[in-house]
Parts: sequence; structure tokens; C-alpha cells
Amino acid sequence: MAKENFVEQIADIEKDFPQWYTDVVIKTKLVDYGPVKGTMIIRPYGYAVWENIQKELDARFKATGHANAYFPLLIPMNFFTKEAEHVEGFAPEVAVVTHAGGEELAEPLAIRPTSETIFGSMYSKWIQSYRDLPVLINQWANVMRWEKTTRPFLRTSEFLWQEGHTAHATQEEAEEETMKMLGVYKEFAENVLAIPVICGKKTEKEKFAGAVATYGMEAMMKDGKSLQAGTSHFLGQNFAKAFDIKFLDKDGVQKHVYTSSWGVSTRLIGALIMAHGDQRGLILPPKVAPVQVVIVPIAQKKEGVLEKCAQVKAELEKAGVRVVLDDGENSPGWKFNEWEMKGVPLRVELGPRDIESGNALIFRRDTLEKQTYALENIVNDVLKLLENVQKDMLEAARVRRDGRIVYADDLTGILSGVEGGNFVKAGWCGCRECEDKIKMETAATARVYAEGEKSKTCAVCGKKAKHTVIFARAY
Amino acid sequence: MAKENFVEQIADIEKDFPQWYTDVVIKTKLVDYGPVKGTMIIRPYGYAVWENIQKELDARFKATGHANAYFPLLIPMNFFTKEAEHVEGFAPEVAVVTHAGGEELAEPLAIRPTSETIFGSMYSKWIQSYRDLPVLINQWANVMRWEKTTRPFLRTSEFLWQEGHTAHATQEEAEEETMKMLGVYKEFAENVLAIPVICGKKTEKEKFAGAVATYGMEAMMKDGKSLQAGTSHFLGQNFAKAFDIKFLDKDGVQKHVYTSSWGVSTRLIGALIMAHGDQRGLILPPKVAPVQVVIVPIAQKKEGVLEKCAQVKAELEKAGVRVVLDDGENSPGWKFNEWEMKGVPLRVELGPRDIESGNALIFRRDTLEKQTYALENIVNDVLKLLENVQKDMLEAARVRRDGRIVYADDLTGILSGVEGGNFVKAGWCGCRECEDKIKMETAATARVYAEGEKSKTCAVCGKKAKHTVIFARAY
Repeated sequence: MAKENFVEQIADIEKDFPQWYTDVVIKTKLVDYGPVKGTMIIRPYGYAVWENIQKELDARFKATGHANAYFPLLIPMNFFTKEAEHVEGFAPEVAVVTHAGGEELAEPLAIRPTSETIFGSMYSKWIQSYRDLPVLINQWANVMRWEKTTRPFLRTSEFLWQEGHTAHATQEEAEEETMKMLGVYKEFAENVLAIPVICGKKTEKEKFAGAVATYGMEAMMKDGKSLQAGTSHFLGQNFAKAFDIKFLDKDGVQKHVYTSSWGVSTRLIGALIMAHGDQRGLILPPKVAPVQVVIVPIAQKKEGVLEKCAQVKAELEKAGVRVVLDDGENSPGWKFNEWEMKGVPLRVELGPRDIESGNALIFRRDTLEKQTYALENIVNDVLKLLENVQKDMLEAARVRRDGRIVYADDLTGILSGVEGGNFVKAGWCGCRECEDKIKMETAATARVYAEGEKSKTCAVCGKKAKHTVIFARAY
Repeated sequence: MAKENFVEQIADIEKDFPQWYTDVVIKTKLVDYGPVKGTMIIRPYGYAVWENIQKELDARFKATGHANAYFPLLIPMNFFTKEAEHVEGFAPEVAVVTHAGGEELAEPLAIRPTSETIFGSMYSKWIQSYRDLPVLINQWANVMRWEKTTRPFLRTSEFLWQEGHTAHATQEEAEEETMKMLGVYKEFAENVLAIPVICGKKTEKEKFAGAVATYGMEAMMKDGKSLQAGTSHFLGQNFAKAFDIKFLDKDGVQKHVYTSSWGVSTRLIGALIMAHGDQRGLILPPKVAPVQVVIVPIAQKKEGVLEKCAQVKAELEKAGVRVVLDDGENSPGWKFNEWEMKGVPLRVELGPRDIESGNALIFRRDTLEKQTYALENIVNDVLKLLENVQKDMLEAARVRRDGRIVYADDLTGILSGVEGGNFVKAGWCGCRECEDKIKMETAATARVYAEGEKSKTCAVCGKKAKHTVIFARAY
């Protein structure tokens, strides 16, 4: 009964994926809509996921030599005009402060949509000599991009992210940094989020405004669409020249630095939902799940049941597991549904009969399997199961995705491929017209170059292919 | 030589405390000025202090049942007008977004100066029943208050902080929460920042705009001025009524909730600097110091020196100590000055002769004492020393402060008291005129009520005193 009620509340994942997404993010209290159009409140359950993401990423950034800092939210409008492509890309999306302290400002200020310009202005002051290089700084911050169509986590006018900004003496070092951080993202996406990603270079059209080259990592959602889960940019000397970031090199010559930038955002929470979720709701990988194990007592008023549950909880906590004992007044069935919807990886069910026989039932959210485990060894078994869930979720996502990568030789093939919910690999001559035509006719965009693959001809014009590109409809 | 050069760079702490402060924050690279007037960049060394502050506080918030969330930066202007005192207090300082996405907005949006209103608007949606209470949410965020006169960390148009916002079924619970969080702040200030604080209620004039009662914690800086280091507000039903936050109580009656809010900010970094620093620069308590121990090799080119230093470093790191080995090209004297300026609690000096005799010299930044320790037991000794530094810094600050609390019976007494760099306790009748007069004539403000003390007469009008108040000039 209760179960059906729950399932009814969430739209059919097969029939209406967008509504399923909205139902899941709202009903699980990950997020709510803010009073200003396009804004969101990240509620405690959603923010706990973000905190786990931050912790894992931050450790990786520090291990690779980066330090955190905090740069101002407000950037003088004229900073954007210093890099021609950059202003073109970001000016239309900027939110502008014109009044403050009861007065009109002499110069309007932009709320940062990204911070290359303000980092650039400070780097030009801080960097004097080759001894000052490299500069490897990251910041965790809010940014704002005014979007017409918004969806919680995926596209909101304000979102949280991290942005790394680095400066180097040579092109090689900056390129190495760009690829290193792309690698950090990939390892993180796969081992922490359990989401397999395809990394590669972006086309000129899809690259970051102001970059020489952008590398992205693309993740497949359950509807076959792609989500750009992170990007790493080699900026060459574009911002160094725009902001005059120069250093005296060992050879006594003044040179411009080379810079990189890279970022991931709260979009990753959207990726988690759409890469793993099912009809019952969320399925969270253990490493980012706010609650890894929920203990649901059966016949909890019977003597000894809650005591035993509390004891198991204490043992799991001691082992570092994030565990909740749900001793509320709702029925076990209601609790099952609630915590399944919230995507908790493991559920331990404990009632009088289990206790008598020295066992507990453990339910796996990812596989929906239920199995009996001996109470005396439950901590080790839970730890082992959490590891397995983490690993198996990645593997399952990889199998799902790999079964949905197809090849196409022409526009019709690309269209039927993406309509079937696939990533489509196709040859591309490299010209903007063909890229635009694919988008117009199929609503798919070039995600990244498929590295190491060599198509012969362009799927649009039939000329010699320069690249094999992964095309997909995208969030 | 090198030493003198360094000291020369920092203004005389006795003669020009404000310039000393500016010199210290800039030269130690804690912070730099942003391109927009009144903004700051928190540089990696300063941000590392903030990260340590965050980690310590966040653990305390979670241990007291609070969860983190993230609310939007932009708040509709009309939200502020819903609470009469609140709008009066904050409207003049607000930065306003009028344009976004290339268009003028239908309604201007405020960048949050504080978030009671937007939390209130969401709480009215989320809270329906007594079962939903209490709501205990905190957020780590940036806020903006447009100030005329700014100083890094102490008063900047944008700063980082945490703001807790809670809702409760009864007045008693909300008041209990208000005092509990004040207690959390006090314990944190003393045991982590090594800064003794005086907590107490604020006068009506000094309270938060929209609160029923504000409790503050005041810290004495080395110039005898006070710094408000944190506040906790009991908001009564003011915001509950303004935003219609109601719940169905157990007795079947619809009631307004009671709310509280509390916050500390990056001002705390300013407090650390001014409560502990000396002519050589910063003195950081070990619990928040980004670097707790620096190892400076002596005659580092001699065989075995750097190897031994690296070995000691590895052992300290293994014990959880944040340690740096400075094997740069500068002279030991230069390094001593540099790391002393940066306030690193302990310096280990290791040269050929030390290694031969199996010893190391350890210098304590807080007491400037240098002593020989056996290398074989150095990890334990360092851990013990770090504990002692932490404890002794609090005790030294307490002794300094307690020697500078005086009593006054009249205005002249208050004036000479604060001019002498003291906190002045004096009786006050409770009327606004007398409070204003004290400020006008002495530049001192009422910091908090001195709890448990009973002055007989008001220092201004001579009428019966209602409170004993701590007056001080303040940051």
C-alpha cells in the first residue's frame, strides 16, 4: 500500500524522464526552488552530498599541490572586455550590480560568472619572477549565470563550484596541468561518483570562451543524454596578455605566463541522480551518500529490538559508517520506501526473529537484493558490502553506457542514434557549418573528440574526416 | 641585518597599531586588496587559517545537531521590508542587482547582507507541524554589506561567514538555542583561537536589526579596543510573523515559531592577528596555524643535514603535525624572520653540530624562548610543546586583558579608561540619551552587559543604574 503510494508520487522514469527528475529532487528534499526565478536552495540532504564531493575533491587538489583561496564576488565590468572571446561568451549571462550603499555606482559591477579575469588581475601583481611560478590556486565559490531555462542542479542562475586557476612558466607545464586536472576529475567521477566518463577535447564551438583548448568529461544519463560533468581549459597566453601577467625568466627575459583553469559544480549532484536513479528514486554511491546505512527495526516495540538496533548502529558508527537508526512511528514498509527513495545504499532490517536467530537482513539499494547476514560479523559484512556497491554501481553504469554507444555514417544515422538514447560516434570534417547542421537537424552537439578513433568521412558533407566526434543530446 | 630589515618593514606596534595591522596582513600574504574598493582577496595563507576555523566550528555545529545547507545569494528587495527594524538596519548597506541576462529586472534584487528573510520565506513553506521542529540549519556563505570605511578582515564589503538559522516550537527552546550557540562560540574562541572573550547581552541600540535580544562575545585586541567576535540572536516571533512561519502544535492550534540566528565571520582572522601579534608579526595558535612547525636547516649543504631534516619532517607529519621544511636558498637568519613574521608556533633548527650531539633547538614563537631537545624524542616533545603554546597563549591573552579592565563612576572616568586602552565597566541607567552621550564624548560604545555586576548609579546622569555595562572603543 504505502509502497504504491510512493511510487505513484514519482513520474514514470521511462515515460517522462524530466518529470521523474523533478519529482526525485524535490521529494527527496535534495533541493527546493528559491524565491527568485532560476535559483535553488540546496537543502541539508543535498548539501551533505555536496560536502562529501567537496571533501573528496579538495583532498585530491591538495595532494596535487594546490591551495585554496577566496577572490571577490564582484568584478569590474571592464575586466571582461579585456579578453575578446571571453566577453562575448559571458557578457550576455552576467548579473550586474548598479547600486550599493544607497548610491548609484560609478562603474557597474558584474557578479562573477567565472573568475579568470579577477585571478588574472591579481596574478599580474603577484607574479614577478620565475621563482613565483607555478601558482596553483583553487577556490570554492558561488557563481552566477543568468539562464533563461533552469533546472535544479543542472542549470541555475546561481550555483556552487570550484574553479582552479594556475599560472606557469611554459606552455608545456600549463598543458600538463590542464590534462592532470582532467585526470583528477575522471578518477574522482569513476571512483567516487561511480560514473564512467569519456574525456576528450572539445570543438572550437563548444570550448570555453577565452580558452585555447577545452577538455571535457561527459557522462551518460539514464535517458541516453550527455551531461558535461567537468571541464579543464588550457588558456595559453590569452589571459596573460589581457592582464599583463609577466615574469622575469631565468634567462633575464620578461615573458607572459601560460594559464589554465578547471572546474566542476553542483551539476555533479544532478549527474548522480540521472546516472544512477530508478523508479523508486535516488541510488547514491556509498562514498557520497549522506546516509550509508539505515537500520529499520521490525516490531520495534518488542523487547530488546531497539536495544539491539542501537548496538549495531554504535558498532557501525565506530567503524566510520554514516548510519541512521529509524525508530520513528511509521511502519517498516513506509520507512523502506522513504529510505529507498533517498537512495541509501544499504538497509539493515532487524526484528525479534532475526535477533533470536542471530541474523539480520540486508537490502542493497543498487541491486534490490536482500540477504541474511550473521549479526556477529555484521560490521565487516557491511563494510565489504559498501565497497561492493561502490564498485558494482560503476560497473553497472559502464555496461549501460557502453551498450549505448553507436556509430553513424550520416545525418540520418546520427538522428536515429540520439533519438534512441545513444552517444553517436561519427566522422566530422572540422567545419562549423557541418557542426551547426548536426545540431539543427538532430538537437545533438559535439561532446568531445573520440580519442584514437579515425572515421574516414564527415557524416554531413562526406568530405575527409578530421576527427571522430561523440555526438549526443546534452543537459 | 636581515632581521632588522624585516622589523623595519612593519610599523611600530606601540606607536601606530593600525599601520602595524595593515603591514602584517599584507606582508604575511594573508590577504590583498581587491580591484573593487572595499573588497579583499583571502590569499592561500589566510584562507588556510579560515579552513582550520571552519573545520573546528563545523564539527561543533554538527555535534549540536545542525546541518549545513545553501540558500540563494539574491533576495527580492521586498523581503526586507517585511520586518520593520530589519529593513532600517540593512537597507542602507545593501548592494543591488538591477540588470541580468542583458535586461533590466522587473524587481531589483539584494545581495544578501544576512539571510533571515530568505530562510524565513522557506521555513514558512517547510514547517507545517510540530513534528517538523526544531529546524537547525547553518550555512557557510559570502555576504555583502556596503561599508564606507573598510579594512581587510575587519570590515569589507564582502566577507565570508557562517549563519545559523533555527526555528523552534517554544520561546524557551529558541532562547536555549541562542545561549547554547553563544557557548559554542566562547568555547571555540578560547580553546581554538586562544582568545578569551566576554559574553553578554547587547543594549537595544547595539542589537541586531530585527532581534528581540542579541548576545555578543567581545575580545580585547592588543591596543585595548574591543572586537565583536561573534553574535547570537534570539529573534522571538519577529521573523515568524513577517514570513508567516506557522505550525500545527500538538494541541491542535496553529502557532508561530520562535527563531534564532547566530554567526561568526572572517573577522575572526583579524581578531587572531590583533589579539596575539607582536612587533615581529603574527603569532598563530597551533590549532589554526596553517604551518605548525617549520624546520630550518643550518649549514644545509653539509652532508646529512637535509636528510636528517627530512626525516624529522616525515616523523612529525606522521604524527599529524602540519610541518614545512624550508630548504630554500635564503640564509637561516632570513628564514627565521620570515617564519616568525608568519607566526608559525614552533621552529626546529637543525645543523651538523646538533645532529652530532643528537639534539635540535626549538624556538617558541609565543614566548621567543629557545631550548635544546633530544632528537630521539622530538615528536613527543613537539606535540607537547604545541599543546603548551596553545594553552599558554590563551592564558597570556587572559592576563593581558584582565589587567586592562577598569571601573569608572563618571564620563571622565570612562574617557580616561578607554584612552588608556581599557575595557571600562560603568553603571548605566538604561536610557538611550546617556548611551549616546558616552559614545559622543569618549568614542566608546556599550559592548555587553557585565553579568552579575551591579553598579549603583549611571555614569552619565547619576540616576539609579539598571545595568553594569562594559564600554570600549571597538573595531
